[in-house]
Amino acid sequence: MRIIVALLAAVSAAAMAADPPALKTPNDVVAGAPAKDWVAIPAGDLLQIELADGRKVVLQLATQFAPVHVANIKALARAGWWDGAKIYRVQDNYVVQWGNNESDKPLPAGVVAKPPAEYSRSLKGLTVVPLGFPDAYAPAVGFSGGWPMAYDLKDESANLTHCYGMVGVGRDLSPDTGTGGELYAVIGHAPRHLDRNIAVVGRVISGFEAMTALPRGTEALGFYKDRSSDVPIKSAKLVSDLSPDAQPRFEYLAGDSFAEYVHLRANRHDAFYIRPAGGVDVCNVGVPVRAVPAPAK
Amino acid sequence: MRIIVALLAAVSAAAMAADPPALKTPNDVVAGAPAKDWVAIPAGDLLQIELADGRKVVLQLATQFAPVHVANIKALARAGWWDGAKIYRVQDNYVVQWGNNESDKPLPAGVVAKPPAEYSRSLKGLTVVPLGFPDAYAPAVGFSGGWPMAYDLKDESANLTHCYGMVGVGRDLSPDTGTGGELYAVIGHAPRHLDRNIAVVGRVISGFEAMTALPRGTEALGFYKDRSSDVPIKSAKLVSDLSPDAQPRFEYLAGDSFAEYVHLRANRHDAFYIRPAGGVDVCNVGVPVRAVPAPAK
Repeated sequence: MRIIVALLAAVSAAAMAADPPALKTPNDVVAGAPAKDWVAIPAGDLLQIELADGRKVVLQLATQFAPVHVANIKALARAGWWDGAKIYRVQDNYVVQWGNNESDKPLPAGVVAKPPAEYSRSLKGLTVVPLGFPDAYAPAVGFSGGWPMAYDLKDESANLTHCYGMVGVGRDLSPDTGTGGELYAVIGHAPRHLDRNIAVVGRVISGFEAMTALPRGTEALGFYKDRSSDVPIKSAKLVSDLSPDAQPRFEYLAGDSFAEYVHLRANRHDAFYIRPAGGVDVCNVGVPVRAVPAPAK
Repeated sequence: MRIIVALLAAVSAAAMAADPPALKTPNDVVAGAPAKDWVAIPAGDLLQIELADGRKVVLQLATQFAPVHVANIKALARAGWWDGAKIYRVQDNYVVQWGNNESDKPLPAGVVAKPPAEYSRSLKGLTVVPLGFPDAYAPAVGFSGGWPMAYDLKDESANLTHCYGMVGVGRDLSPDTGTGGELYAVIGHAPRHLDRNIAVVGRVISGFEAMTALPRGTEALGFYKDRSSDVPIKSAKLVSDLSPDAQPRFEYLAGDSFAEYVHLRANRHDAFYIRPAGGVDVCNVGVPVRAVPAPAK
């Protein structure tokens, strides 16, 4: 077997005494990051989707970027609105999409039927870590609170970027913004043309394989031809509503460790690489997220 | 159901008499492109991989970018070397990889065991269509002969970019370049840090769903834990070696139609879009490829 990434190559090089020592990889930074550089994600910002086959997919919600849509999603989860919903669309190199038909299943109380167009927000109040490399879509890109984003210093706007795993709100034509009842997640190369045209409300941080490896739909736009192909969802619940013992916990990498991680993603100099790129795309950074055990009682 | 792309939205808008007419989409350009803008891909540059379950995946080989590796791949196909090979690695948001263990299965005659490092080539002799938007990895990006690529006018070098569906050659540490006996295809956001560090030899142009929707491997780097999970390959043959009636045929979009397509990918102004991006990533263009019937006899 051959490998095409650095991790094993570095290990292999380190194992060969005659070779120079392996240089630091992005994974080394993640493995060695001190506790102070890991930020806990609040349980109230986590949505756990359980498929009918028992697999679980966890989403982190972006309250600070789309507050009304995220509040809708929380209200929908609390009402059990997605229990029995379906994944009905899987379009290769694009999105997987799920929800209910809102004309068949009325929205529960507390859900804003016509939310504002939360496609971007003000830069004010955000702490931004600039990426510092060019972007085809925006004047600048970077990270804020662990989220990949684009921003514009001229009009002081910021928006989440449609990277792999990011979750947005399905909608019809404007001014409809969607309620949050139908959601999609990106399963291919970042469709950044959707940025600032849709409410991005979060990202998948665990169990995404249960969605990304689904059979692709054969109808136009990846809809399943036969509704019996739809993948049933057992439930979607806020993690903060689960019993404490059942709550998964996650942290994302920040601080100096995240900066070093990004630097090494842009400048791979470990044994496998001959020519470091000297740059990295905002959607190829991949903010490290880890599952952590519950604190000891 | 809600949709998040323009095609149906545009159709829907056109159907509503009170609305303004739908504006042209990239798909409209593809559908309306004249025959002169479609370029046939030679059958000798197509490799058809048939999985044991009968599904077929077709690769286009990039002879002009990695001639020695591509010649190896053709020799391996002619020798039936991949018949019975396995897909043994599926790493989410990264690659699917297949081949044989070369220490178990000797390479056939005619295969160059130590090919040169065909990681980039000279710009000379290439017709380049510049993309014209910034890139995080290279001074410039664009297309040549239907291939997405990066280039540098200073050192006059060019290299294929690791976009979704692009195929590269697995290797160990340098100076090993791999023979072509083990190949991978990108199934996630473009891992462009691999550019200029690996021989890119082609791209998947048909049937990729048979690879992208495979279960992800649970071992490090996406290797399947249990070798019985490996996905068997029945055969890999050059299309030019199939009987004429069995040869699939493909064309890619070029010329003015391709230019208009790229322009519209960067400036979505059809009914669904509120804010066109004004730019597009080289790996989010997606060079249109179509299957065409055999000519009438």
